[in-house]
Amino acid sequence: MLELLSEHACFGGVQRFYRHESTATGLPMRFSAFIPALPNGQKLPALFYLAGLTCTEETLATKAGAQRVAAQEGLILIGPDTSPRGANIAGETDAWDFGAGAGFYLDATEAPWSKHYRMFSYLLELHALVVAELPVNPAKVGIFGHSMGGHGALVTALKRPDLFRSVSAFAPIAAPTLCPWGEKAFSGYLGADRDSWKQYDASELMLAMEAPFPGGILIDQGLADKFLEQQLHPDAFEAACAKARQPLELRRHAGYDHGYYFISTFMEDHLRFHRAQLG
Amino acid sequence: MLELLSEHACFGGVQRFYRHESTATGLPMRFSAFIPALPNGQKLPALFYLAGLTCTEETLATKAGAQRVAAQEGLILIGPDTSPRGANIAGETDAWDFGAGAGFYLDATEAPWSKHYRMFSYLLELHALVVAELPVNPAKVGIFGHSMGGHGALVTALKRPDLFRSVSAFAPIAAPTLCPWGEKAFSGYLGADRDSWKQYDASELMLAMEAPFPGGILIDQGLADKFLEQQLHPDAFEAACAKARQPLELRRHAGYDHGYYFISTFMEDHLRFHRAQLG
Repeated sequence: MLELLSEHACFGGVQRFYRHESTATGLPMRFSAFIPALPNGQKLPALFYLAGLTCTEETLATKAGAQRVAAQEGLILIGPDTSPRGANIAGETDAWDFGAGAGFYLDATEAPWSKHYRMFSYLLELHALVVAELPVNPAKVGIFGHSMGGHGALVTALKRPDLFRSVSAFAPIAAPTLCPWGEKAFSGYLGADRDSWKQYDASELMLAMEAPFPGGILIDQGLADKFLEQQLHPDAFEAACAKARQPLELRRHAGYDHGYYFISTFMEDHLRFHRAQLG
Repeated sequence: MLELLSEHACFGGVQRFYRHESTATGLPMRFSAFIPALPNGQKLPALFYLAGLTCTEETLATKAGAQRVAAQEGLILIGPDTSPRGANIAGETDAWDFGAGAGFYLDATEAPWSKHYRMFSYLLELHALVVAELPVNPAKVGIFGHSMGGHGALVTALKRPDLFRSVSAFAPIAAPTLCPWGEKAFSGYLGADRDSWKQYDASELMLAMEAPFPGGILIDQGLADKFLEQQLHPDAFEAACAKARQPLELRRHAGYDHGYYFISTFMEDHLRFHRAQLG
């Protein structure tokens, strides 16, 4: 079911890369899995990390510096790809913010994207797969991500808090219906009806809930992030959390930008946050 | 003198990328510099990290996970490029183990390489430059590196222990005159006379010395490294150190390979080793 592509010793555990046939996307998909050293037969908590635009299943493993603390905390790290690959749709690779590498973690309803671009369903499929095939404790799975992947993490957790029990984000696209990236992607994948977009907007989803994560949500945002003003709108999500009585720690960091120098700086805090939330 | 190309907040300090005109290579060169937060006017110890074949000045900054401990220990990290760029020599980019990205940290004597491929002299130039332009304490500069860069670090430190006061390596090409990578590079850069090669072979250099680093040298080597048997020869360097009464901690790690999953695992140990050596 899982094809092991490569394995590398790392911080006493193993960094693996897998390929598998996906029912949700109808295509082969790749993901990374960091698995700490573990006593025989033990199941560990796991975190899904959703990467941003242009990234791949390798991004978490190579750039985020997450394995050290994951090894300390006994956390499995799962890094899905950011879109289907090889759907062979005309124009699929023309833009960096739509199509390949930019699946936005949603199920497209518009042709021709609706056949393969079903990343929300894919995440649920991958959750079931890693619970079945890797030493993952299904009661202790969290999710986090960056930018487009921060959007994906918040939305996925808010839609399926039964599967993802803790959530955090780095510089998420926190209100995609309000920003150019979201408008472009949602128009293309979901069509012109803006009402249909709300199901994939974390701020809209939060407005309809009451404290879905009573232990809190953690978001880190750099104040030197060039995408902050136009694309990210953490203030909209903050306001929605206030209305929903959802505890939120939104930390604003002077000087930090949108990239992995920022993410790696605060990665440890996120891993320890999830470990504490997952108990 | 230094052109700042970019700057990113990282672990409370800054990850910078610079460009400058080099006298040694006759071309513009790039390097990375991580500078921890520091009290006004204070000068800090610094480490040069020499990367391996195909790498660039970005490799240390993006893949090694070194900034966290460098920030803790108050260490500046300097990441030079692995060769001149843009020399426009025919065939310069045809091979991954010779020419661009493969400068071997030596001064070529064979035309056409001898005009620009002068990376040993470049490292000395860069040492003077960062001491002059960055808050580097010139009495506390060390050097380390990986693979081709491990070779470069050992050779540079053994040739100039007055400038580089501590040295370590990850999976270094420890006896380049004995291996295919070294034979190809040294033939091309230095010519057919094998005697001329010895000045850039760490094991040969060590045989002519007496404990040049009395505080010790640290080397980490993975035992699942596919290049170990044919290319690296740490045993030759170990034997030379024994003859030279040079204290050496050569750690052999079961399961680890040649890449940055290995390097990032042991990066913290190297940074703390240098910090202790530099006092």
